[in-house]
Amino acid sequence: MPARNAFYAQSGGVTAVINATACGVIETARKHRNKFRNIYAGRNGIIGALTEDMIDTNKESARTIAALRHTPGGAFGSARYKLKSLEDNKAEYERLIEVFRAHDIGYFFYNGGNDSMDTAHKVSLISKRMGFPVTCLGIPKTVDNDLPITDNCPGFGSVAKYVAVSTQEAALDVLSMAKTSTKVFVLEVMGRHAGWIAAAGGLAGKEPGDAPHIILFPEVPFNQRAFLKRVRECVTKYDFCVIVVSEGAAYKNGKFLAEAGTRDAFGHAQLGGVAPVVANMVRDKLGYKYHYAVADYLQRSARHIASATDVKQAYAVGQAAVKMALAGKTAVMPVIKRVSDQPYRWKIESAPLSRIANKEKMLPRRYITSDGFGITPAARRYLEPLIRGEDYPPYINGLPNYVSLKNAPVKPRLQTKFVV
Amino acid sequence: MPARNAFYAQSGGVTAVINATACGVIETARKHRNKFRNIYAGRNGIIGALTEDMIDTNKESARTIAALRHTPGGAFGSARYKLKSLEDNKAEYERLIEVFRAHDIGYFFYNGGNDSMDTAHKVSLISKRMGFPVTCLGIPKTVDNDLPITDNCPGFGSVAKYVAVSTQEAALDVLSMAKTSTKVFVLEVMGRHAGWIAAAGGLAGKEPGDAPHIILFPEVPFNQRAFLKRVRECVTKYDFCVIVVSEGAAYKNGKFLAEAGTRDAFGHAQLGGVAPVVANMVRDKLGYKYHYAVADYLQRSARHIASATDVKQAYAVGQAAVKMALAGKTAVMPVIKRVSDQPYRWKIESAPLSRIANKEKMLPRRYITSDGFGITPAARRYLEPLIRGEDYPPYINGLPNYVSLKNAPVKPRLQTKFVV
Repeated sequence: MPARNAFYAQSGGVTAVINATACGVIETARKHRNKFRNIYAGRNGIIGALTEDMIDTNKESARTIAALRHTPGGAFGSARYKLKSLEDNKAEYERLIEVFRAHDIGYFFYNGGNDSMDTAHKVSLISKRMGFPVTCLGIPKTVDNDLPITDNCPGFGSVAKYVAVSTQEAALDVLSMAKTSTKVFVLEVMGRHAGWIAAAGGLAGKEPGDAPHIILFPEVPFNQRAFLKRVRECVTKYDFCVIVVSEGAAYKNGKFLAEAGTRDAFGHAQLGGVAPVVANMVRDKLGYKYHYAVADYLQRSARHIASATDVKQAYAVGQAAVKMALAGKTAVMPVIKRVSDQPYRWKIESAPLSRIANKEKMLPRRYITSDGFGITPAARRYLEPLIRGEDYPPYINGLPNYVSLKNAPVKPRLQTKFVV
Repeated sequence: MPARNAFYAQSGGVTAVINATACGVIETARKHRNKFRNIYAGRNGIIGALTEDMIDTNKESARTIAALRHTPGGAFGSARYKLKSLEDNKAEYERLIEVFRAHDIGYFFYNGGNDSMDTAHKVSLISKRMGFPVTCLGIPKTVDNDLPITDNCPGFGSVAKYVAVSTQEAALDVLSMAKTSTKVFVLEVMGRHAGWIAAAGGLAGKEPGDAPHIILFPEVPFNQRAFLKRVRECVTKYDFCVIVVSEGAAYKNGKFLAEAGTRDAFGHAQLGGVAPVVANMVRDKLGYKYHYAVADYLQRSARHIASATDVKQAYAVGQAAVKMALAGKTAVMPVIKRVSDQPYRWKIESAPLSRIANKEKMLPRRYITSDGFGITPAARRYLEPLIRGEDYPPYINGLPNYVSLKNAPVKPRLQTKFVV
C-alpha cells in the first residue's frame, strides 16, 4: 500500500499532557514515512477537518515536535464540537470524508473523551460505506478519568498530582495560622459527574487528622447536617479543617450546591463556584473564619507539576495508536492495562471503539469511605501510582519554556465552504 | 559574654519560604553554641512567648532542620497578633521581657512584615528600659513585597513565580479552546493594598497579544467602561482575553470590586471573590463565556514551584540576622540590596528597624503602563530576577516530602499565666 496522509485532531477540554500524545503520534508516524506521508492536524480540532482548515505538521522541526511533550494546552487548538448522529446530520460525516478524500487522508487519529470515541467509531463506519475506508484510531484523553476499559486516562494523573500537592501545601499554610486566623479552607476542583479528581485530593493525607479532612464527591448526596458536624469535629480536634469539594457536589434531589440560590445585585443567578457556597455555609452556621480557592483551569494546565507516569502514558498511547494503525487495526483505541499495583506496572492494549463510545466509568463506591467523606485504601492503591514521578519542563528566566507552533495551513483543495 | 538562649518567632501570613528563613537562623545559630545555647521558637508566633509556650528546636535533628528549607507554611505556627502600643498595653511587653528573663533569652529574632518590625523595635527599646537588654533582630518576610529599604521581600518571589507560571499555563489552555468555548479567563491573586503580586502575572507575557492581556491593580481605580472596551478588543484581536485581578482592585471611591453588592439567597453580602464579580461583568455586558480561578492560599504555599532566588534569599536573611546578632548589632533587619539587574546580583546589608516599622512600599506608578492595564519594561527588569531558578522539594511517591517537627515544649518556669 502506498503512503497516505494522516489526520490528527484534539478534542474537548485540553490537559497538561494532550500535547505529549500529539508528540507520540507525530514522532512515531515520522519514523514510518513509507506509510504516513504527511501528518496534518485539525486547527481547532475536528472543526479544522470540516472547514478544510488543516495544519501541516511537517513544517515543524523535530525539536519543536519534541517540545510538545512538555507543553500544556492544545497546540493545534481543540474544540467542544460533537458531531450529531448520522441520521441527524449525515452531511457533516460526508463532508469529513470529502475532505479526507481530497487530501488523501487514510488515517484518522482522534484524541479525546467519550464523545470523540463515538465520532471516531462512526467515521470508521461511514468511510467504508462511502467507499473511502479510513483507518480510525481513538486516543484517550480526559482529566475526568471516565473512559471505560482503560485503567486510567492520560490527563488525569497530572490533575490528580496538582490537586494532591496543592491540598498538602495549603493545609500546611492553614494549620500554621489556625490559632488566630483561618480555620476552614475549601478547595474546589473539577469533576461535574465523577469524583475522580476530588478523590485525588485524598492522597495528601496519610495519617488520621491529616488534611483533607472532608472530600465532597458528586457521588455522595450532600447532607448539610452531617457535613457541618464533621467540620466542627475537625476544628475541635485538629484546630483546622480542609475540605476538597468537587464542582459536581449535589443535594439528594440532584441540585448542584453551586446553584444554591446565590444571586448578584441584579438578581441574576450567580454562576459557578461551589467553594464559596460551602465556605459561606460554614461561616453562617459555625462562625469559623474561612478561605477558599478555585483551581479551575490551573489544575488541568499545570504542566509544571505534571505526573511523570501521566506524561509517559500520554506519549505511549499516541505512539501505540500509530503502531496499531501500522498493524492494520481500525476502530480501536489504545487502553492502559494495569499489570500490578506494587510495583506499579502497566502496558498498552487495544479495545474496540464500540465498547468505549459514550460510556462513563464512575468512581466506584468502594473507593469512598462509608461516611462518604474520604477515600479508602483501595482508592489509594489505585490513585497513588498515577501521580508518581516528576517530569519538569525546561525553564528560561524563571518561566517554563513552552513551545508554540507555526501552525502553517495546508492549502485547501475543495471549492466548497462548509459552515459549522 | 556567656552563651544565652535565642528566641525565634514567625509572624503573620506564612509563605512558601518562611521555613527556609527559620532554617537559616537555626543552622547558623547552631554553629555558634558559644553564643547561642538553645534556640527556642514561639508556638504560634509571639503568642508562644507571651503564654510561655515555647518550642525547643534542639530536639530536632540536623536533618529535620535542613528539611525546613524545602517545606512551606510555618513550622512552629504563626499568628496574626499585633502587640498594642506601649502606652495601651505595657503589660504585654513586660510579660515578654519577664518570659525572656526567666529563660535567659538574650536574642529575639522576629520573622515577619511591617507590624512585626515595629514589635521587634519596641521590644529592643523596652528591654533596655527594663534592665534586661535583648538583642532584637527583625527578619523580613511577606508575600506582599511591601517592606521599605529592602529591594524585595522573601516570600514574594515564589508567589510571583506561581502567579506568572499559572497565568502562562492557563492562557495556553484558554487559547486552545477559545474557538468554541471559554474566551475570557480571570485569575484572582492576593494583594489588598499593593499590586506587586498582580504585576508578577505580567511576566507571563512577552510579545504583544500574549496573556495576560489585562491586569487590574489596586493602584489603578477600576473603570468599567475602559475595562470592557479592552476585553472586547482582546477577544476580537486575539480570540481570547486573560485577566489577572488583584483582590484589592477597587473603584475610584475606594470601594472594592469584591464588595460589588453580590448577595446570597438570604440577602447576606457575599464575601470575597473579585474574580466572579469581574467574570460576571464580562458575561453580562459582553456575553462572552468565561472561567475564573481563585488562587488564594495555593499561591503562597506553592513550595513545589518556589523561586530558587527566593529560597536562597529567605535562607540568607535568616543567616544574616544571626551574624548581625553575633556582631553585636541590635534593632536592625537584614535587607536585600540589588547590586545589578543584569546579571542579577544582590547582597545583604542591615537597616535600622525604626526606618522599616509601619512603612509600606507601594508598587511605583512607573511600573504600570499608562493605560493602567499592564506592566512596563522597568517592572519587568525589577520582577524577572526574583522568579528565576527552580528549587524543587524532594518527592516520595508523587508527593513532596515536607517535614513536620516534633515541636517539643520548653518547660515553663513562671507560675503566672498570661491570657492573650
